[in-house]
Amino acid sequence: MISSESYTIVFDWGSSNLRASLLNSSREILEKQESPFGIRFVPEKNFESILLELLDPWISQLPSGQLSLVALGMITSRNGWVEVPYVQCPASVEDLAKGMLTQPLRNQLNLHFIPGIIDTSSQPFSDVIRGEETQIIGLGVDKDQIIVLPGTHSKWVRTLQNRIHRFQTFVTGEIYDVIQKHSFIASLQTEGTPSDQAFERGAKDALADYPQAEALLSALFNARKGVLSAQIATDDVAEYTSGLLIGHEFRQAAQCGWFTEGESIIIVGNNRLCARYQQVAQWAGLQVELGRLDAAEQGAMTLLEAKGK
Amino acid sequence: MISSESYTIVFDWGSSNLRASLLNSSREILEKQESPFGIRFVPEKNFESILLELLDPWISQLPSGQLSLVALGMITSRNGWVEVPYVQCPASVEDLAKGMLTQPLRNQLNLHFIPGIIDTSSQPFSDVIRGEETQIIGLGVDKDQIIVLPGTHSKWVRTLQNRIHRFQTFVTGEIYDVIQKHSFIASLQTEGTPSDQAFERGAKDALADYPQAEALLSALFNARKGVLSAQIATDDVAEYTSGLLIGHEFRQAAQCGWFTEGESIIIVGNNRLCARYQQVAQWAGLQVELGRLDAAEQGAMTLLEAKGK
Repeated sequence: MISSESYTIVFDWGSSNLRASLLNSSREILEKQESPFGIRFVPEKNFESILLELLDPWISQLPSGQLSLVALGMITSRNGWVEVPYVQCPASVEDLAKGMLTQPLRNQLNLHFIPGIIDTSSQPFSDVIRGEETQIIGLGVDKDQIIVLPGTHSKWVRTLQNRIHRFQTFVTGEIYDVIQKHSFIASLQTEGTPSDQAFERGAKDALADYPQAEALLSALFNARKGVLSAQIATDDVAEYTSGLLIGHEFRQAAQCGWFTEGESIIIVGNNRLCARYQQVAQWAGLQVELGRLDAAEQGAMTLLEAKGK
Repeated sequence: MISSESYTIVFDWGSSNLRASLLNSSREILEKQESPFGIRFVPEKNFESILLELLDPWISQLPSGQLSLVALGMITSRNGWVEVPYVQCPASVEDLAKGMLTQPLRNQLNLHFIPGIIDTSSQPFSDVIRGEETQIIGLGVDKDQIIVLPGTHSKWVRTLQNRIHRFQTFVTGEIYDVIQKHSFIASLQTEGTPSDQAFERGAKDALADYPQAEALLSALFNARKGVLSAQIATDDVAEYTSGLLIGHEFRQAAQCGWFTEGESIIIVGNNRLCARYQQVAQWAGLQVELGRLDAAEQGAMTLLEAKGK
């Protein structure tokens, strides 16, 4: 297809870090780099200098005629380098490719920005993502699937009829973080090794079918009630609460129509949080597949090719 | 009924403060005092000295033969003065009176401790309260009622057949506090005057009937989505979120079987938070009565009399 080897650098530049991958024309990742220079740490929007310095070891060794750069993530937002308008859901590969913006760099290389997407069907206000759309494209939109991307703000995404159909954000990770640092949960928790069962117990209490399980604002008090009644060890408070919150995310996702028992979902990521989501998904009666870890790189390649057509 | 005038000092000694009232035998409150010496600030459990010093202006002027002292709240817990075992729900006036403990003070006065109550029907763990049971007795258990006590940890309480039947804790106030101080909500919020509609909008979004309204962990992202889509002013973020959380407490309480539309509830308290609960209750389709503000004092008198019988 391509006569001489060409290369692509794909980078996800988010608020708190920058992750770059170098791929060949067979879409194999040759090298990776990560920098803590998230966009909020970049002074005076001096993005180009920081990027070129970081990528110099790659760029200086590669033939410039055969190198493309593709950016995704918060770098395309108002606080980023170039604000790229959102593409509306349902969004196909072609829709996203059409929404890409290209900007020449001072070294003559072209940098292509991938747009985020907006779901105007989200109630009461539109929801938006920047970066995850590329991962979804990399996983493939040719099948109708439910994809979960765990994180501080986790995303549930539906693909349907070759499009990213809709998505929903859950701020579970951030709520866990602030309550285990700043609430009565922090006062209860002690420093010992938590038991292996604490997380599971929390998740299963969230998924239980008695009426009180419905009420997260009440269930968050479980840890304290459990400690008072000697049912939860103080070493287990944070783990229990983590299970409870992720369990509630699944409970609430089901109530929002994301899945019914027995269905399959794809979970993307390989960190500890993803392993937790995988466990809870199974307890919620779901079949779980793990998404490929290079979804962002593959999605960027797909979009770059579609744009070139 | 009583030949010469007698007096009672009722005090609610909680974790963060002490509130004392002096009543005559007609149950009229003659004077009130408040001290910031909550039980967690009392060194070496030196409760008696602090109490007698605070109450000295009253005690020294009253005939000791006609003075009783009644304590309620966290002072009866393990970290308090005397740990009084919980009385089990459903609990009548007589059950609570029987559970009271009496201790003579060094000045020969008797101090009566009112027990807290435990609801072992609460799932997955028993729930407990110390202090609110006395307010409920003061409001009266002769009618079947739903009583809401707003606070950092609000309580929903059901009276039935002359008993405190069951209750449930919602940690809504604390969750609001930590997220508006420490989460993305804090970053979004600006210092200007919020609009009058922001709180109402949040509450009504919580009570809405589209499926996404079900999911609190997702709805907490509304403020950010609303700001991004220019539907919420950054000055309104905290007010919107306060409405959203209290609205969710009502939504979740309804799901736990606490009420159906058109029913009546009693809200106890006269602070800003209670006014907010009153508004949300009305938006949730409830009839609202306000409970008497001296419910704790009246309840303590009722229990003291029942104990004397």
